[in-house]
Amino acid sequence: MTDIVRKDSNQRLSRIVIHGDTVYVAGVTSSAAGGIVGQTRDALAKIDGYLAQAGTDKSRLLSVQIWLKDIDRDFAGMNAVWAEWALPQAMPTRATCEARLAAPELLVEIIVTAARRPGAVSGPVSES
Amino acid sequence: MTDIVRKDSNQRLSRIVIHGDTVYVAGVTSSAAGGIVGQTRDALAKIDGYLAQAGTDKSRLLSVQIWLKDIDRDFAGMNAVWAEWALPQAMPTRATCEARLAAPELLVEIIVTAARRPGAVSGPVSES
Amino acid sequence: MTDIVRKDSNQRLSRIVIHGDTVYVAGVTSSAAGGIVGQTRDALAKIDGYLAQAGTDKSRLLSVQIWLKDIDRDFAGMNAVWAEWALPQAMPTRATCEARLAAPELLVEIIVTAARRPGAVSGPVSES
Repeated sequence: MTDIVRKDSNQRLSRIVIHGDTVYVAGVTSSAAGGIVGQTRDALAKIDGYLAQAGTDKSRLLSVQIWLKDIDRDFAGMNAVWAEWALPQAMPTRATCEARLAAPELLVEIIVTAARRPGAVSGPVSES
Repeated sequence: MTDIVRKDSNQRLSRIVIHGDTVYVAGVTSSAAGGIVGQTRDALAKIDGYLAQAGTDKSRLLSVQIWLKDIDRDFAGMNAVWAEWALPQAMPTRATCEARLAAPELLVEIIVTAARRPGAVSGPVSES
Repeated sequence: MTDIVRKDSNQRLSRIVIHGDTVYVAGVTSSAAGGIVGQTRDALAKIDGYLAQAGTDKSRLLSVQIWLKDIDRDFAGMNAVWAEWALPQAMPTRATCEARLAAPELLVEIIVTAARRPGAVSGPVSES
């Protein structure tokens, strides 16, 4: 029994960590084609999947960091996809900067903190 | 009714998100004149305002990230303003790095996590 | 009496801030010899110490950010040390990017969020 739930773990990280009412999602990147639009869309789709695994969704985003390989070139493209995806009534706090990422083909990395659903058990949680 | 309160939201982000006892503030920048000193002072003044909107203040800072456009040139200037502003008895954890920001004139971006006041209602909170 | 505990504070930051069940650790760097391997090992050893001061340990890591001065050169070296140190059954979420740090000799900075031990008092905590 533990009060911390880790999902989708590998030798380096867990994609999802749940503690109390807070859901942490690891930095999400994409190797999808289509430049910043394709990669942002794919990264956000992966985030939808991770949030679902954690029993929550994008209506419960708390805070987001976005790292772009080339902020001058890609800020507008990332924002266009973000605006399609994020819910107007549920915008998280956000901060965006330029940063070189772990592989040269990666244009964007997104780090999310979200809230569990209010009805969720507040005590220890078993791994499903 | 919701357990997440979002304030000062626009099409891209909320400036403030409150969840449980934690207050998230979006990355704060400034276009004030006066170089790193002017921008840091203005950004921290904005943060005072956001914390007040969230019913808390700088005595309850938890964790801060500071991104500087030019860390070699501006680390000392940012730190001087920070030292004037932050409370010696209430220093948050902090990490500072260099990062290019969303517009070329921006020299500093500050991301804050703070705690709500202990007396605050711990259950659902209505948007004021 | 306060519900926020700050440890190892200086004029700029606290190395450790504890709020509720969450432990924030300031960005940890190292000036140790030995390049990325030496610095990462030393930074992680310091983190072990900070977690111990907060009454927790690396089995309760939640989320980590790693900033590398030169990600192309040092990503593999950092990961090798990370793999030795982190517990396979307790991997946090993680995100790594390249960023220039506060002094030219610094190759890595690590920011950690962890959970307090489940048995810990959940109310106000006195500074030890």
